[in-house]
Parts: sequence; C-alpha cells; structure tokens
Amino acid sequence: MENSYDSIGGKSKDVSLKDLSIRLAEFAQVRGWDEYHSPRNLLLALVGEVGELSEIFQWKGEVGKGLPNWSADEKEHLEDELSDVLLYLVRLADVCGLDLGQAALTKIIKNARKYPVVVMNQKSKSTYN
Amino acid sequence: MENSYDSIGGKSKDVSLKDLSIRLAEFAQVRGWDEYHSPRNLLLALVGEVGELSEIFQWKGEVGKGLPNWSADEKEHLEDELSDVLLYLVRLADVCGLDLGQAALTKIIKNARKYPVVVMNQKSKSTYN
Amino acid sequence: MENSYDSIGGKSKDVSLKDLSIRLAEFAQVRGWDEYHSPRNLLLALVGEVGELSEIFQWKGEVGKGLPNWSADEKEHLEDELSDVLLYLVRLADVCGLDLGQAALTKIIKNARKYPVVVMNQKSKSTYN
Amino acid sequence: MENSYDSIGGKSKDVSLKDLSIRLAEFAQVRGWDEYHSPRNLLLALVGEVGELSEIFQWKGEVGKGLPNWSADEKEHLEDELSDVLLYLVRLADVCGLDLGQAALTKIIKNARKYPVVVMNQKSKSTYN
Repeated sequence: MENSYDSIGGKSKDVSLKDLSIRLAEFAQVRGWDEYHSPRNLLLALVGEVGELSEIFQWKGEVGKGLPNWSADEKEHLEDELSDVLLYLVRLADVCGLDLGQAALTKIIKNARKYPVVVMNQKSKSTYN
Repeated sequence: MENSYDSIGGKSKDVSLKDLSIRLAEFAQVRGWDEYHSPRNLLLALVGEVGELSEIFQWKGEVGKGLPNWSADEKEHLEDELSDVLLYLVRLADVCGLDLGQAALTKIIKNARKYPVVVMNQKSKSTYN
Repeated sequence: MENSYDSIGGKSKDVSLKDLSIRLAEFAQVRGWDEYHSPRNLLLALVGEVGELSEIFQWKGEVGKGLPNWSADEKEHLEDELSDVLLYLVRLADVCGLDLGQAALTKIIKNARKYPVVVMNQKSKSTYN
Repeated sequence: MENSYDSIGGKSKDVSLKDLSIRLAEFAQVRGWDEYHSPRNLLLALVGEVGELSEIFQWKGEVGKGLPNWSADEKEHLEDELSDVLLYLVRLADVCGLDLGQAALTKIIKNARKYPVVVMNQKSKSTYN
C-alpha cells in the first residue's frame, strides 16, 4: 500500500477526497486513535492547524500570488500546514458521516446561483460577500 | 458544464482536489474576482468560514460520531460550512501555486513516520500531539 | 447599575478585565445560560467571533493603521466584533477559574524576557516569532 | 516601571484594558516592531494564538468548569495562551484607533437589549444565538 502514496510515472496524481478519507480512517484505526476523533475534538484540532497556517503569513504584509521570493523551505512549510487543515477537515466530515466531496460540488452549485455571472463583464463587487 | 457538477448514474462521484481547484479558478475568473483572491484575503476568508463551522458546534456540548439526533437541515448546514472551508483552502493553495493533493499525500507519509504504529496494539497516547 | 456602563463626566472610563468578568457572569446567570457556558462551548463561540472579525478584513487587502477611509459604520462593526472576541475570552477565563488580567501582566513580563530590548536600536527581526 | 507589573500587597490588581494597551504600545515601540504591527498582521497573529489556545483543549473531550484534574502546568499554559489572544486583541484595537474597553461596555448594553431577561426565570434557549 505504501506504493500507492506516490504519484505514478512522474505524473502528478489526481487525489480524491474519498481516497484521503479512507487513508485517514485507517491511519487512526491502526493507531488506536478512534476514541479521540470525536467531532468537537477534530474541530478544535482543525482550528489549531488554521492557527499554524496563519502564523506563516502573520508578519509578511501583503503576499503576492505564487509566493514570490519565498524559499523552498517556506513553501514546504506552507504545504504542510495547508495539508494539516485539509486532513482534519476530511476526517471531521468522515466522523460526522458526511460526504465532503459531494457536499463541495453541491456548494459550488449553490454559490453559482447566489453569484450569477454578470454579462458584459460588469463587476459585481458590491454583491460579493 | 453544469452537468459535470452532478454525480453520474446515481453513484457518488469521487471528487478530486484538482477538479475542485480548476472549477474554483474558473468560477473566480468569470466573475472578475481574481484581483480579490490574494493569499491573505483568501486566508482571512477561510478563517471566517472556520468561524461559521465552529458556530454550528458551539452550544452543543460533546457531539457523538454520526451526529445522532441532528436534523437533516442541521446536517446540510454543516455540509455547507465544511465545504466553504474546503473551497477557500483549495483556492488558497492554488493561488499560492501549490498542489494541495500531492501535499496532503506527502503529509500523510510524514505523519506515518512521526507516529509509527505500535506493535501489540499498545496505545501511544503520550506521543499523540 | 445601568449608569455604571457609561463613562463619567465625558472622560473615557478605564475598563478593567475584572469588571467585565463580573458583568458577564451576572449577565449569564440571570438569563439561565450558565449551563451552556462550559469551557469548550465558550472556546468555540470565541472561534466563531474571530471568524466574524476576520470577515471584516477579508477582501480589503492591506489596511493602514487608524483605518483610513473606513466609514463610521464599518468602525462600529469592527468595535462590535473585537468586543465579542474579548467578551468570550473574558468569560472563558472566568469559567476556567483563571485571572485573565494577572495572567496578561505575567505574560508581558515573560515576553519582555524573551525579547529583550536591543541596545543601539539594532532591529532583532530575526528573533521575532 | 517593572514594579507596576506586580500586584500590590498581595491583593490582585484590577488590570485595565487601557493599561494593557499602553504597555503593549511601548513594548512594540522600544523593540522597533511598529512597522510590523499593521491591522491584518496583528489579526493573523491573533488567529495563530487562538489556534494555540484550541490545541490545549483539542483532545480532552468535554472539560468541566474550573478545570478539574488539570495540573498547575496545564493551567499556566492555558493562562499564557489566553493572554496571548488578549494581548494581540488589545494591540489590534489600538492600531485601529479604537477604544476596546468602551466598545466592550457598549456591546454588553447591546447584548442586554438583544437578550432581555425573561421574567419568571423561563429559559429562553431558543433565542440564544
């Protein structure tokens, strides 16, 4: 199974939320962590990781897209913290019995209805929020 | 394109992070929102959604796995908020130029090394943190 | 007692953490809310308010000190959200049986030791974190 | 000035928000940190500290009032993290040019109007939120 962690043939693998969810459930189960993975415990762990994510950005002032001038180490640190948030989010949805992937697709549709595309490229800044 | 939002043949679709990332980039682009989607703007939007997620759980005391006694409406609300966190996280990674799916797989491997499975099912609670 | 809410003689009153703590304890008590004010409930409520605080800043890009060009309404909204975070923080400390004011003074002393003032005004940016 | 940090005569001092605000402004000024203390930098630092606060509670399940069975070290750690949240909140209000103490008193009055005390001690759980 370890092999399946890797991308295949150098091509970046298309990682699914369901795959992550299954891996994390197994990860917790074999370590005897299931009893700790209650919804509110996982939610607070998620908040903790959002805090670590924020710390990366806290003294930087505005940061440009693509992270210009960030070192490889800083980018890897950011990847780790983004991942930690994701992993707790996926795990939280799973222990709540919810399908996060389907929920996300449904939410995109709701958002598309809430913020219809304005023809003629008129900006709708005022409706954004 | 609307069609592609739906699951196919009633079977729950395996939603990938890359797919979400592409949809969200297009969603922002056609609405003229790209200029607002700087890393720190998206991070603060993510924090805002984590707040809304927390509000769902705030007065409930401990919540059991599977959300016993939650109404369908409450579960849908939770799906919406979990999704909002996910969507901003995916978008944040994208504007930073990072591959969130690969990063998550890499992080699981790091975690597996950090928390090796203890043989004989001895709990390693003390190393968990 | 309502009178004591106001500043006296036009001079802004010096509000103490202990005063806030006592008011909030009474506020909850007379409304029958004590049973809901467990530490983790209050912590999640705090996270919810931090989310609302973040929403105020989320699409603004960098914001200057003193909030140049913010309307009076925006400033009042910000005051409300800053206050909500403070009130839950004060209440959380109280139900935990901790003296937040003393703790804050102690923490300032710890911070002063951790970040000594560098003579000759040499910046110690690298040690700040 | 160091003396003023301490409580006097063994009696716990009544710490005011204004006092904390002044101390923190001086603290930053003498360390050359003013340029880093923009509103959004401080907000993200606050989110970081809320994360550290959450980490203390994350694997504990429900926690009783007064923190039964917590060690002195755990309580001190909690005092430190509560304080860090408070200090960044006070500093954020200050650089925004807002009076946090007055804002908090005003918010308590608004809350009192929003949640009037129900006579006969009938619980108003449904209106709480």
